[in-house]
Order: sequence, then structure tokens, then C-alpha cells
Amino acid sequence: MKKIGFIGCGTMGKPMALNLIKAGYALTVRDLNPQPVEELVAAGATAAHSPREVAEKSEVVITMLTSSPHVEQVMFGPDGVLEGLKKGSVIIDMSTIDPLVTRKVAAAAAEKGLKMLDAPVTGLQAKATDGTLTIMVGGDKELFEQYKDILQVMGEKIYHVGDVSMGEVVKLTNNLMGVIAGIGACEGLLFGIKLGADPKVLHEVITHGGGNSFFLERLAPYPGLVPSAPVNNDFTPGFTTDLMAKDIGLILSAAEANKVPLLVCSLVRQLIEVSQARGYGKKDWTIVSKIINELGGAEA
Amino acid sequence: MKKIGFIGCGTMGKPMALNLIKAGYALTVRDLNPQPVEELVAAGATAAHSPREVAEKSEVVITMLTSSPHVEQVMFGPDGVLEGLKKGSVIIDMSTIDPLVTRKVAAAAAEKGLKMLDAPVTGLQAKATDGTLTIMVGGDKELFEQYKDILQVMGEKIYHVGDVSMGEVVKLTNNLMGVIAGIGACEGLLFGIKLGADPKVLHEVITHGGGNSFFLERLAPYPGLVPSAPVNNDFTPGFTTDLMAKDIGLILSAAEANKVPLLVCSLVRQLIEVSQARGYGKKDWTIVSKIINELGGAEA
Amino acid sequence: MKKIGFIGCGTMGKPMALNLIKAGYALTVRDLNPQPVEELVAAGATAAHSPREVAEKSEVVITMLTSSPHVEQVMFGPDGVLEGLKKGSVIIDMSTIDPLVTRKVAAAAAEKGLKMLDAPVTGLQAKATDGTLTIMVGGDKELFEQYKDILQVMGEKIYHVGDVSMGEVVKLTNNLMGVIAGIGACEGLLFGIKLGADPKVLHEVITHGGGNSFFLERLAPYPGLVPSAPVNNDFTPGFTTDLMAKDIGLILSAAEANKVPLLVCSLVRQLIEVSQARGYGKKDWTIVSKIINELGGAEA
Amino acid sequence: MKKIGFIGCGTMGKPMALNLIKAGYALTVRDLNPQPVEELVAAGATAAHSPREVAEKSEVVITMLTSSPHVEQVMFGPDGVLEGLKKGSVIIDMSTIDPLVTRKVAAAAAEKGLKMLDAPVTGLQAKATDGTLTIMVGGDKELFEQYKDILQVMGEKIYHVGDVSMGEVVKLTNNLMGVIAGIGACEGLLFGIKLGADPKVLHEVITHGGGNSFFLERLAPYPGLVPSAPVNNDFTPGFTTDLMAKDIGLILSAAEANKVPLLVCSLVRQLIEVSQARGYGKKDWTIVSKIINELGGAEA
Repeated sequence: MKKIGFIGCGTMGKPMALNLIKAGYALTVRDLNPQPVEELVAAGATAAHSPREVAEKSEVVITMLTSSPHVEQVMFGPDGVLEGLKKGSVIIDMSTIDPLVTRKVAAAAAEKGLKMLDAPVTGLQAKATDGTLTIMVGGDKELFEQYKDILQVMGEKIYHVGDVSMGEVVKLTNNLMGVIAGIGACEGLLFGIKLGADPKVLHEVITHGGGNSFFLERLAPYPGLVPSAPVNNDFTPGFTTDLMAKDIGLILSAAEANKVPLLVCSLVRQLIEVSQARGYGKKDWTIVSKIINELGGAEA
Repeated sequence: MKKIGFIGCGTMGKPMALNLIKAGYALTVRDLNPQPVEELVAAGATAAHSPREVAEKSEVVITMLTSSPHVEQVMFGPDGVLEGLKKGSVIIDMSTIDPLVTRKVAAAAAEKGLKMLDAPVTGLQAKATDGTLTIMVGGDKELFEQYKDILQVMGEKIYHVGDVSMGEVVKLTNNLMGVIAGIGACEGLLFGIKLGADPKVLHEVITHGGGNSFFLERLAPYPGLVPSAPVNNDFTPGFTTDLMAKDIGLILSAAEANKVPLLVCSLVRQLIEVSQARGYGKKDWTIVSKIINELGGAEA
Repeated sequence: MKKIGFIGCGTMGKPMALNLIKAGYALTVRDLNPQPVEELVAAGATAAHSPREVAEKSEVVITMLTSSPHVEQVMFGPDGVLEGLKKGSVIIDMSTIDPLVTRKVAAAAAEKGLKMLDAPVTGLQAKATDGTLTIMVGGDKELFEQYKDILQVMGEKIYHVGDVSMGEVVKLTNNLMGVIAGIGACEGLLFGIKLGADPKVLHEVITHGGGNSFFLERLAPYPGLVPSAPVNNDFTPGFTTDLMAKDIGLILSAAEANKVPLLVCSLVRQLIEVSQARGYGKKDWTIVSKIINELGGAEA
Repeated sequence: MKKIGFIGCGTMGKPMALNLIKAGYALTVRDLNPQPVEELVAAGATAAHSPREVAEKSEVVITMLTSSPHVEQVMFGPDGVLEGLKKGSVIIDMSTIDPLVTRKVAAAAAEKGLKMLDAPVTGLQAKATDGTLTIMVGGDKELFEQYKDILQVMGEKIYHVGDVSMGEVVKLTNNLMGVIAGIGACEGLLFGIKLGADPKVLHEVITHGGGNSFFLERLAPYPGLVPSAPVNNDFTPGFTTDLMAKDIGLILSAAEANKVPLLVCSLVRQLIEVSQARGYGKKDWTIVSKIINELGGAEA
């Protein structure tokens, strides 16, 4: 079995790494925070002191980091991954970052004779723990097939979606469509209910109609409509407002670099920012429904 | 069988009336345009010279008109329906209009001892012809049950959605959610494809993800993704841009009267208006995707 | 001196009528509310029982009404102005209404051999009282010159701005530019001050720069910057939020009828509506700055 | 006279440096592009091979660079300014950059015993050449007074606007207000003219009314209204679309970091981006009026 390095052992990364250990892989791990590293070592992993050391001890390095600059630092920084990996080795970046940064990393890796897949995930900590994430993978198709077994330890649905960076693009597009449909559902619920409709009837009829969306079906932020929706659990995430803000930020930045105006996305971004300004950053992002409702004069 | 009056025999109304005739109902019909009236008379209906005359000869009057002022004219105008109907008779307004006008008509009807259901439909001419419309009905539940058999001649899914005017509210809310999710899908497709994603893969993955919507699944306006989508048939409607503009106009006007700010809906309205200004009023509304794309510098 | 009829003796109309009386004109007045009529009668006017009666007793009828439907009612309704005026007489509508309604009234008047000017005003009750309103007049240039003396009793700056309805168009355009520049100034003040700038310095420098506007110079809604601004007087109007909402409604409706998408105006309309929903309808419209600030998490 | 270093000799920097030379200052200059350096050397300056070398030879270093990363590179990079300046020396950054980067540079400078002013400018190449720029200066008031004579060589209006980084904040706020008022004026001109108003009359009346702004008075983008406006010179800049896009980008990014939602600014940003996508990046930014007009179906 391949020797795997794993960098970034946070909320998502730690349970993903644990699943790899359980599946029998030899793992070398690294995180600036010592606590999850200790837990992983207790479970059988080896700790390393730098990304370079992780790379030196591995054939595959998986990264699960919080932002583009973190990925650049870990890859290109002093004692970085690119200094340590042997020719022919593989980087699998599972972080959600700017696809243009992904391309930059892939290009630098290629120059050193390294290969790369980008493989961002959807699904939250629970799915990371259960190994049932959805993973969208960009990169060479053959390379993907070769490393699919590793990804299958962490995810349930694994899609190959095109060349390197397309994992990021598809994931961000998914979020772009989801957040706009979601805000639309919030405005619709506000409108319908203010005009007197029964929320349950409204929901039931529209989920069978042209206004339906994943958001309406699974996340509808009105109490009692969807038992598992965050609204019924004090907006415990789920996917936080801060993470949604980060993802839309990546979308708008990549869009800007490609001269793709996105008028509605841009307005939606501001509404998410209002939600952050209201102090809802750590809550599930569907709490933006409160902002939409408050604009109409409702109690917070 | 009840004697039915039918006012408004246009694109939708004529096939709906025909289905009632075929089902054996005695129909008295009225339209300002003589041509559909002649066709219905040939099929067995009786023509009347005014809404009042229709009402005098009927126990139930169904209206299928194009706008709130038309409904007000037909109900309240000289020789209007309210002058002709006998106490205890029933009005079923199947037009899509301002729910506040619906309430006004219902209140005036109640004062004269008349009953009313509002029963707007979704589905287009083909479904009107096949008798497979979706009908959302507002009004007294018992009254609804009593007249459901008539509606079942015209529609397949018949929902009772609350008190009078709730049919309109639910229908408009459905369109509100649908148009916003639709514009979101357009922005997403533009973004993803410009960033290099394969349209088919993008569509396939996101229809299984959090970005999914009725719109994306059935109407995705990129060639080849959904064979039956209007984009693959030169944007033959379907539901025209002008009708979508009308419905959003009703939404924003009802929202304004109820002090419900709808920021995203309002921006979306302007994009639909850009589509109208570009001359796309009679095309399927999903042609708004061209506007979204052109904003990004694409060819029209 | 010409015999003048005056219909609509509200907040603005009453002091305008009083100035005409003081200037020596014989006035026949009409309002649904008896109180201002009594005051005007006490000052020398004659009361009439209908718009028609006003028209029968006058060579010129001035109207100062609150909305398009009111103007239509007073002109076209039973016992309306058009029934009473003699051929060759003149209508001067000083209401702020939909320019398309103005054109309709002017066309109907022309058919009866009547002439018309539209002459909406800017400036508030104080200027109505002082006779220092700004008046924008549409209609035949010669006709304008002939009746300018009457307008000069009520206003200080009197502009002839084109054919009939152009008074309305120019006034609405003025408000359109003003409200957008105003919201821009609010966003700018929020931004600059949150980033640490001294409000007085910011204001001083920008009023001399490319960011300057009438709004910033005269109405800047931050305490202490402009002593006479409504913010320093508990947002006592001035020009109320409700009136601004009405005017933007007229703009968007006329724009829609002419297929003129106005994206920013449309968003600004929603922010004004948020202000109404927050209960600020009767306050000066510059209170919208509170809404802008609250979106950023500030205290109300 | 103080020995001055000048880094960044582009469109703006070169004429600014020339004015300093003409005023008798000994200048050491640096730019990656050799051509303007040669011109400045011919005029009496000394060339240096790195920012560090500039710093070593100067008591004051002025920087006039195109973006935040350039400033960071020049200050913090290898052979950067901070390596070369002697304790007690002064940095004057005249670039327009993210105020948060300004604060970072100032903090790093302070740690090394250096002092800093930020002093971004408004006014274009012509004013740089004439020495009539407007300069907004942040930093210690006494320090400002001490170095004002240098700034006065380059600018006409010199404002001290607060602590370090406030120059940037005030400049960006000025642009924020200006661009929104400008888009508002464009929407207003489109509306008024489409509704039939005479452009000259419209402009004349509104510049005396509540809709007035610096933009309307000086830059109104309709042919013939303001002779010196870019619209009358094929949109030759002036201030390019790309620069405006850059500045709004800085605003939105600083706003986001401070949790200040700016809904209208954000929409305006997208309209500027549409202008870039249409290929208007190098034209004067007021060409955005064409975009506004095209949305209404006008010819490009």
C-alpha cells in the first residue's frame, strides 16, 4: 500500500486521515496545531515537523487546508512539499481554493516531475467521519483511476470532472447555484408566508413544482418544514456562513480574473456579508433567511 | 351536470373550455375575439354577448384572463359577471393575477351572496390541451371539494392551498423561487464553462448536488444538456419572457403593498427586462441565459 | 386677472393656493377634506362641490394631487374637470405623477379643445409657503409664456423643459439621480468612517472632489456635518421616505413601460422599501442611511 | 534640500519625479522599465539598481506603484526599501492601495525606526505634469507639516486627513461616492432621454437641482453636454475602466475585511466589470454609460 502524507488535520482533515489509517495506510501527518496530530499518532500515524518532511516520507501527499494562501505556503514555502517529494510522486489537494491557484501549483509540480489531482469535497464533518463525502476530482483521467482507491476510503461519490483545477471549478459552481437558489427560496418563503400562505402547504406544493431546488427540499429555513434542516437545530452547521462567504469570495475572484460578471451572485454575496456582520459567521449559512426576513421588518 | 360559463378563450382558455365540452358540460362562452368563440360553438358551446349574459346562463363562471384589470373589468364592469350571477352561484378565476385583486373580487362576490375560488394554473398550452395542468386552488375547502370534479377535467394535479387568493400566492411564490434559481443556474453555467468545465459533466454532477433545482434539471439553457429544454428548440416557449415579466411584476407589486423587500427578485426582474428590451419577449424566458452570457462579453 | 380653479389643497396645495389668493387671483377651490377648503374660503376663495364645478367657474384649473389615479379620477371621473371646462381653457397639473398618465390627460384635453401644461414642483412645504418652489413645466412654449405669471406666484425657479409630460420626466429624472447619489454617499460615509476616517474631514475633502453631490453637500446624513440636514433634526422631513418610494415607483413603472432596465435604481428602490418596512415612511428619506448602517451590524 | 528616492516612474510617477528634479531636489530613481529611468537620468536624476539602493541613498523614499502586492514587494522583498533606509528616514507612499496594506507597511516601518505617510493622489497625467494633483495625506500631523513642501511640488490641493492609511481611505471613499453617483447619472440620462427629454435641458435643470453631482456637472457621458467630458473625445482617459475596477476592488476587499456590506457598490462593481468584459478597460470609465444604455436595447 502507498505511503501517504497528510497535511491539514482540522475539522475535516482529522477524520479523513483517521479513515485512511483505519484502512491500513501508513500515514505521515502534519498540522500547526499539535492536538489533532497527537490523536492521529495515537491512532497509528507518524508526525512530521514540516511539509517537506511529510513529502520526503510519502509517495502521495494529501492536503486539506483552509485557503489558497495556506496551500501556497505549504507547497512553495520554505520546507514546503515541493522541496520534499520525489519525482513521479503525487499531490492530491482536497482543499477548496481558487482554481487559478490550483493551476499554479499543478504547473509548478509538473516542472518538478510531480503529478497532481485537485479533489475538493462536499459534505460536512459527519460525512468526513463516515467516509461518505462527495469528491470532485480534476486531473489526468488515468492518474485519477490509479488513486481512486485512496479517495474511496474518504468518500462515497467520487466524480472525475476534467483536467486539474476542474474539481475546484465544479465544486464552486455547485455552491454558486446552491446559494442563489437558496436566497431565492428565502425570498419566496418570506413573500408567500407574509401574503398569508400556510408554510407547510407552500413547501409541499412548490417542492413538486418549478420552484423546487435542493435547498428548498433539504434546507428550507422555516421551522418545522424539514426536520433535519439547520433551522430546526438552532442553525448548528452544516456549512457555516463564514465558509459560504469564503467560497463566494473565491467564485467572485475567479470570475473577476476571467471577466465574468455575476450580478446576482454579487448581490447574494453582500447578503451573506450582512449575515456575517450580524454575528452569524459560525452558524449554518441558511440563517441568512433571518436577514432576508428582517429586511421586511420582522423581528430578528 | 352543472351549467358552466367560460370567459377568456385564448391560448390557454380555449383548450380548457374544449375539454369541459368533451366531458359533457353545457358551456356558455365569451371572448372579445370571435374566432375561438366560433370554434367552441362548433364544438357544442353557446356564445354569449357579455360577461353578464354568460353569468345569467350559468351556475359556475370560470374566467381565464390575462391580467388584473381584465378580471376587474369582466367582474365589475358594465354588463359584468357580478350583475348576472344568481345568489349561491360560484366564480372560479383561473387567471394569474394580483392576489389583492382576487381578494377584492371575492369580497364583492361575497356581498352579493356569491362564492369564489381562485385557481391559477401552471403548465402550458400542451397541458391545457391534454387536461394535465397543475392547478392551485384557494377558497373554502368544502367548496373546493364540491367543484373539484370540474377542475379535474382540466388538470392532473389539483392542490387546495388555503383560503381565497392563496392559489395566486402559491403560484407566484413558485415562480419567484423558480426564476431566481434559474438565473442562479445561468450564472453558474456561465462561470463553470468559462473556467473550463465540461458542460455535460458540470450538469451531471450538480444535478446530484446542493446546486440542483427544477430549472437545472429540466430547463438548463445550454445546448445539448436537456434535450427537451427550450434552448434546444430555438427558445420556443414554454413560458414566455413577457409572461415571466408579468408574473414578477405581480410579485413585486404585491410585495410592495405588503412592505416585503425582495432584493434579489428585484434585480432578477431587471435582467428579465433587459431580455425584453433585447427583443426576446415572445421567446421562452430561459433565453435570459443569453443576456447573462452577453454581460460576460459573449456573442449574442 | 384670470379666474383660477384649484383642486387638491393638501400640505403643498393649500399654501400654493393661498399665495395665489394673496396675489389677487379669484380662486375656486376643491378638496375632499373640508378643513383646508374652509381656511381658503376664509382667505377669500370660493368653494365648489365637484371638480366639474371648479372647471365651470374657471379659465385655468390647477391640480395638485397625490397620485396618478387621483388625477385620472379628477379629470375623467363623473363630475370631472373635463366635463366642466370651456373650449380654449387651460389645465395646469402640478402633481407628480406617471408621465404616461400626463400624456393621456393631455390627449383627452386636446380632443375637447383644452390646453395643458404639466408643472410638477420640487421644494417642500416651506417653499410652497414662501412661493419659492422650483417648477418644471412641460407643454407648448407659447402657452407656458402666457401662464408663467401664475406660476411665478408659487415658484422662484421656473423652467420650461419641453413638451407636455416633460415636467414630470425631468422631475423624476432629478429624483432618480438624487436618490442613487444619496445611497452612494451613505455607503461611502459608512465605509470611510468604519475604516477610521474623521467624518468632518471626509466630508470636507470629498465635497471638493469627484465624489461630491448635492446630497453630500446639503443632506449628508451623519450628525454634525451639515447643520440643516434632516439627520440633525430627528429626520423631520424634508421629503419623506413614502414620497421617495412613490417617486421611484413612478420611475420604475414608466421605465418598464418603455423597456428601460434600471438595475441600480431598482436595488435602491428595495433599500427605500426596507426603510418603509422598518417604519420610517413618514421620516425624511435620508433616514435610509440608518438602514445602510444597520446592514453593517451597527445599532439602529 | 532633502535627498529623495523615487520608485515607480510610470504614467504618473515620471512627471511627478520630473517636477521634483525641476524644483532642485537630488533624486535617485528606480523602475523595472529602463525607458523612463533614462529620461529622468537625462533630466538630472541618478539611477539605482534596487529599491534598497534607492533607500540607501535617500532620506525620503517616495513610491508610486500600481498595486498592493507591488508595494509589499518593493518594501518587504529582497533588496527592498526597508533594508536600505536609515533610522529616522521617511517613506511617502503615493500609490493607491489597500489601506490595510498601508497599515502593515507603516507598522513594519515603525519597528525599524522609520516614519511613514500615505499620500495617494487624484487627478490624471495632465495634473501630474502640471504639478496640480490633489493629494490626500495620512500620518502624523507634524510629520506631514515637515514634508508638505515636497508634496506641494507635485500637488495643488494637499489635505492632511488623519492617521496613516487615512489618505487611502479618503481617496477610496471619494471614488466610491463618485462611481455610484456616476452610474446613477447614467441611469437617469438614459431614463430621461428615452422618455423624451431634451438632453441639454435635462442636464441644465438637474445640475441646478437635487440630482446634481460632480459627475453630472463635469463628466456627463452624453455627447455635447460637457465639452471637456471624455464622451466627447472618444472616451480617451481620464481615469480608465481598469483603474476604476481596481479601486472598487480595493474598496470591496477592505469593506469585506471590516464586515461592511456595500450592496449598491457591489452591483456597480459588476457593471464596471461588464464594461471590462466588453473590452473597454483602457477607455475612460465613463464609457460604462454605453453598458447602461445597451441594457436598454440601444446600439452599442
